Amino acid sequence: MPASLRVLIVGGVACGPKTAARLKRIMPEAEITMVEKGAMVSYGACGLPYYVEGTFANINALTHTPAGVSRTPDFFRTWKGFQTLTRTEAMAIDREAKQVHVRCLDTVEEKKLPYDKLVLATGGEAFRPPIPGIDLEHVWFMSHPDDAASLVEVVEQKGLEKAVLVGAGFIGLEMAEALVNKGLDVTMVEMMDQIMPGVIDEDIARMSQIHLEDNDVELVLGERVTALEGDGQVRRVVTDRQSIEADLVVIGVGTRPNDRLAREAGLDCDGGVIVNANGQTSDPDIYAGGDCVRNQFVHRLVDERLFVPLGSTANKHGRVIANHIAGRPTPFSGIGCSSIVRAFDFTIGRTGVTETMARRLNIDYAVTTWSGQDKPHYMEGSRLFAIKMLASRRDRQVLGVQVAGTGDGAKRLDAAACAIYFGATLDQLADVDFGYAPPYSPPIDPLAVCAHVLTNKLDGLADGIGPLQAKAQMDAGGCLLLDVRLEDEAKMEWIPHTDRVHIPLGQLRERFNELPRDTPILTYCKVSMRGYEAQRILNAEGFDNVRFIEGGVAAWPFETDMPGL
Amino acid sequence: MPASLRVLIVGGVACGPKTAARLKRIMPEAEITMVEKGAMVSYGACGLPYYVEGTFANINALTHTPAGVSRTPDFFRTWKGFQTLTRTEAMAIDREAKQVHVRCLDTVEEKKLPYDKLVLATGGEAFRPPIPGIDLEHVWFMSHPDDAASLVEVVEQKGLEKAVLVGAGFIGLEMAEALVNKGLDVTMVEMMDQIMPGVIDEDIARMSQIHLEDNDVELVLGERVTALEGDGQVRRVVTDRQSIEADLVVIGVGTRPNDRLAREAGLDCDGGVIVNANGQTSDPDIYAGGDCVRNQFVHRLVDERLFVPLGSTANKHGRVIANHIAGRPTPFSGIGCSSIVRAFDFTIGRTGVTETMARRLNIDYAVTTWSGQDKPHYMEGSRLFAIKMLASRRDRQVLGVQVAGTGDGAKRLDAAACAIYFGATLDQLADVDFGYAPPYSPPIDPLAVCAHVLTNKLDGLADGIGPLQAKAQMDAGGCLLLDVRLEDEAKMEWIPHTDRVHIPLGQLRERFNELPRDTPILTYCKVSMRGYEAQRILNAEGFDNVRFIEGGVAAWPFETDMPGL
Repeated sequence: MPASLRVLIVGGVACGPKTAARLKRIMPEAEITMVEKGAMVSYGACGLPYYVEGTFANINALTHTPAGVSRTPDFFRTWKGFQTLTRTEAMAIDREAKQVHVRCLDTVEEKKLPYDKLVLATGGEAFRPPIPGIDLEHVWFMSHPDDAASLVEVVEQKGLEKAVLVGAGFIGLEMAEALVNKGLDVTMVEMMDQIMPGVIDEDIARMSQIHLEDNDVELVLGERVTALEGDGQVRRVVTDRQSIEADLVVIGVGTRPNDRLAREAGLDCDGGVIVNANGQTSDPDIYAGGDCVRNQFVHRLVDERLFVPLGSTANKHGRVIANHIAGRPTPFSGIGCSSIVRAFDFTIGRTGVTETMARRLNIDYAVTTWSGQDKPHYMEGSRLFAIKMLASRRDRQVLGVQVAGTGDGAKRLDAAACAIYFGATLDQLADVDFGYAPPYSPPIDPLAVCAHVLTNKLDGLADGIGPLQAKAQMDAGGCLLLDVRLEDEAKMEWIPHTDRVHIPLGQLRERFNELPRDTPILTYCKVSMRGYEAQRILNAEGFDNVRFIEGGVAAWPFETDMPGL
Repeated sequence: MPASLRVLIVGGVACGPKTAARLKRIMPEAEITMVEKGAMVSYGACGLPYYVEGTFANINALTHTPAGVSRTPDFFRTWKGFQTLTRTEAMAIDREAKQVHVRCLDTVEEKKLPYDKLVLATGGEAFRPPIPGIDLEHVWFMSHPDDAASLVEVVEQKGLEKAVLVGAGFIGLEMAEALVNKGLDVTMVEMMDQIMPGVIDEDIARMSQIHLEDNDVELVLGERVTALEGDGQVRRVVTDRQSIEADLVVIGVGTRPNDRLAREAGLDCDGGVIVNANGQTSDPDIYAGGDCVRNQFVHRLVDERLFVPLGSTANKHGRVIANHIAGRPTPFSGIGCSSIVRAFDFTIGRTGVTETMARRLNIDYAVTTWSGQDKPHYMEGSRLFAIKMLASRRDRQVLGVQVAGTGDGAKRLDAAACAIYFGATLDQLADVDFGYAPPYSPPIDPLAVCAHVLTNKLDGLADGIGPLQAKAQMDAGGCLLLDVRLEDEAKMEWIPHTDRVHIPLGQLRERFNELPRDTPILTYCKVSMRGYEAQRILNAEGFDNVRFIEGGVAAWPFETDMPGL
């Protein structure tokens, strides 16, 4: 390798600067140039909704280092030792000559930049749905600090009041929180029948939807936006069923990889650049990373390339690429499909395989949903949340975990991501020595309890039924719903069903004869522990068609009844 | 196995009831009896400091289920299906006859209870130091709800004001928070030179000590309490150096395993009952679990039995024992030495091997300390904390992690506990797909960053020096301290040293010639990222005796200087 290896990096937001900075530190002799089409480099795009929400006042904070220094080309030169050309667009790659044709957007000057190693960190682009009115005023995408800045400015100057969010993915949820907290009326329109389609399962989505509605977000699911209408500025969002008033629209319907350069250069692409574990494309001197590439999953079980654009992955790619260029390879194992989002007081997260995905991949899985408190119930700040966990029936490996609720699901998600990375079985996950003290968790961590429930299911001890299946069975009729909570609890809120019986668990060992032996029984309580106990007690008394509703009332993703309703 | 297996359980706090409840669920035909010496069963002793603090008002909450039902013998009978005898002391085991001699403490009646399987869950006992005055009034141990209840009652009735805590372990720290928040003057006396000796390393302890002192806890370290003095009620705590006024004393100097029954029955004990992975003692029909046993570590690397009494482990034991009795073994892998404590705004935690332990075990380790924010700096609620990480030089496996600070160290601790359980290498830990969104973490999780720093050290790229070693080197003299922060930062607070230079990182590539080439240089910044960059820049310019102070000012565990001080 030449003493002054020339490394050219296209793209200056996340993977690009990470590659450059890391490489310069470990290979100080490298000559590194980074070109960026925009005027700004290295900004934290994930922070845009929080600027809109008012979490911080100066949008430039998104380009600052923690010490408050702005990440400009000058910063990168003096602090990090590499050259940055902004407002410079990469037009084409000449792989033969090992050059990239670039154009300076201000001077329209074109030139050819040579490279020994080229890194494509061209990112992703917000998908612009091909519908009329998309170019009206007051229609925003949230991909650049300018978007957030202009939205805030216009909302404040013009006193906009009615926001419609198109798409109920991450940007939709984060913007819903931001705009409700700014005092706007917020409607969220999603083409699919649930929020976060493709990310979380329907049951977890339904729980979260109830929380969004409780926080004044109007949800319009299963409707496709066909047009935006207005008089210069947007006035209405038209769906295939209705027309919704709007004086501002935020569109978040997904990201597409910016793989044009790579495709045109003949590199392998398939809805994103295809790279190996070291970030190399089909041309070993050209690397790609960040939102323009497809990723492998950390397990062989999921044998398909996934497009999951995330700043965390982009940073990992940058380090992997720099390490490989410097001759210190640290191959990337793949993504775990971890993602997390806050919506008001709810934490919604997912890692690994969802049930939807397991079905599609034809995996023989077992699944359960647990709900409960994140700390001992006597501690202030103890909060409810639910964990949905999937495991492979074949080898009992944990496949995936989803969390939803006000409790600390983020901690459990990261521990689960770690467990899945290492191929943990359910028994192993439950065996991990998680830190225990009352301000942080109950003596048996919820993640362990959930793994216990799932092993109990696999062992034929716990006969749980998921809430969607329970609802379907109840709707079909012919089953009895047995509430085993205390008198007081049972009076406050209950799952509606025509054929309901209430026997507190403490009386069940004496009163089981009141129950019919020829009718399927679904038991439930607040979270499902007593529901499970009831199932075991009835099983021991010879009732063999008893299942408990997993997650109980706390995770019930449909309407409940209350007195006076 | 007989249809009605008789299972006798001695001890009714954590492991005992867990064993009984689990066993009854999976083996409904078992006849289970639990005997408990005290009047109360199944209480959450870990919650006592939070009752004292006023986090909850009714101490009975500690014996309640999350649904608010009191866990009494009647509860266990009707809800869980097993018999409980309280105020019943197990006197001796007759292994030949398979009987336990018990005495009813109220009637003084003695009887023999037969067993097919016996479970010893006799717990631990607060160590009572053999010093004069230990039986004075207003001297408390915190092991039973009665202790906390009487302390609160007496403090309020008599208006006690000066508390002295003897021992700076978990109980000491939790009670310090509780009593300061109750408005008392609090002094904590610890025989060793640091808080939490044996749990965390000196550097992490020193950081935490600064936080305790900032919260008005007077620390007296390295002094041995030789007597308590008073006139019926305690008035003074006498140490080997001074006499401290006190009108209340809480003693928390460790727990000893209650292994008398086992020892007297000839079962293998060694400062705690010795059990195999299924919880069996040297008599296969006798199990033991909870705070009366010694545990193995999850790795072979730590080849010694450890006494770490914890409610979380006790519950794991209960399940393991029940599963084995029922013929469904799920052997316990051992403990990871995870522990966590909150002290005011600080989270202090540890999992795996500490540096102190690694030295004792003669492990060839590498170590680093990282500090930084737990979320992106622009998010409100972003907080500083430090991570200290050890890895084996031989195979780069993560050995241990300690956290301290106001940031969310609990999440990182659990992920680290999981990684250590699975024998993660540093590269693997950094590769895990942790959930990323601004309300939860920066794009590269602190745990991954810390693992990166440690790999950089092992790869000879990062030449960090721990704060204790840095302080020693500075005290010895002959080294230059180079502050590479911004002008404004450098003026606000700095590490004191006679030979100091300030060159902001952004100017270092041009001003390095101002530095002497023949003097060892220690660089530092706020957290250590820029300190590391400075080291790399100077290395590239031929300076070969440069190290950065790990954790920077943020994790500096000694006094800093500020203007006007």
